[in-house]
Amino acid sequence: MSTVSTGSTASDARLEANKRTVLAFYQAAINEKDHHAAAKLLGDTYIQHNPRIADGLEGFREFVETLRVDFPDLRCEVRRIFAEGDHVIAHVHGVRVPGGPVTAIVDIFRLEGGRIAEHWDVMQQVPDEARNRNGMF
Amino acid sequence: MSTVSTGSTASDARLEANKRTVLAFYQAAINEKDHHAAAKLLGDTYIQHNPRIADGLEGFREFVETLRVDFPDLRCEVRRIFAEGDHVIAHVHGVRVPGGPVTAIVDIFRLEGGRIAEHWDVMQQVPDEARNRNGMF
Repeated sequence: MSTVSTGSTASDARLEANKRTVLAFYQAAINEKDHHAAAKLLGDTYIQHNPRIADGLEGFREFVETLRVDFPDLRCEVRRIFAEGDHVIAHVHGVRVPGGPVTAIVDIFRLEGGRIAEHWDVMQQVPDEARNRNGMF
Repeated sequence: MSTVSTGSTASDARLEANKRTVLAFYQAAINEKDHHAAAKLLGDTYIQHNPRIADGLEGFREFVETLRVDFPDLRCEVRRIFAEGDHVIAHVHGVRVPGGPVTAIVDIFRLEGGRIAEHWDVMQQVPDEARNRNGMF
């Protein structure tokens, strides 16, 4: 009967574990800006697609250091998180400077063996005015 | 044994059906700019979070008409698509004018009963230069 199961599966457990890893990564890398704690959640290689960040583990370290120095109060909040297969997708509310503009972000992570191996993102500043009242989140 | 199944499930079939609906929606709404065909894939209500588009079915119709008039050759290509629960997430390569700048987009759709009921997105122009060679996709 496994082909008609709609209950929890081993696959579901892996998806939830990957989500927890990504949530821990946001906390360590972005909110705490703790490169060492965050790096434990990365794989042996880290393929970076954000055009403002250099590739690999060293590029990631440099990025977190830049945040720590330039935007010490930067905070992000994960508003939605999804997982399928090896990927985790998060819809994130980011504020660089308290009281400043909000950035809407979607990050896509690919994991290997429970660790983050690749990252894509798209970012957009939330405008002051909108044609609907629903907000970007 | 359903709790340890890792095979196909009724839930998986629904996720794949939702993805097919979203892919058909891109083709109808964005590539063909055919409001009538696209509207068949929408629910009775459509909650819009893109700040440049008015809410609801009427806002959607107006958006597609604007594309048809202002950007008749606009094309999008879905590079990645994921689904979890009632949501479908797509990583999309968009070009408004052939040969012009590329826009990286992530759309998040919520479906109800197999039809699209809510939409969030984030858009960013792909820059000419980047700090890595991996591209935004």
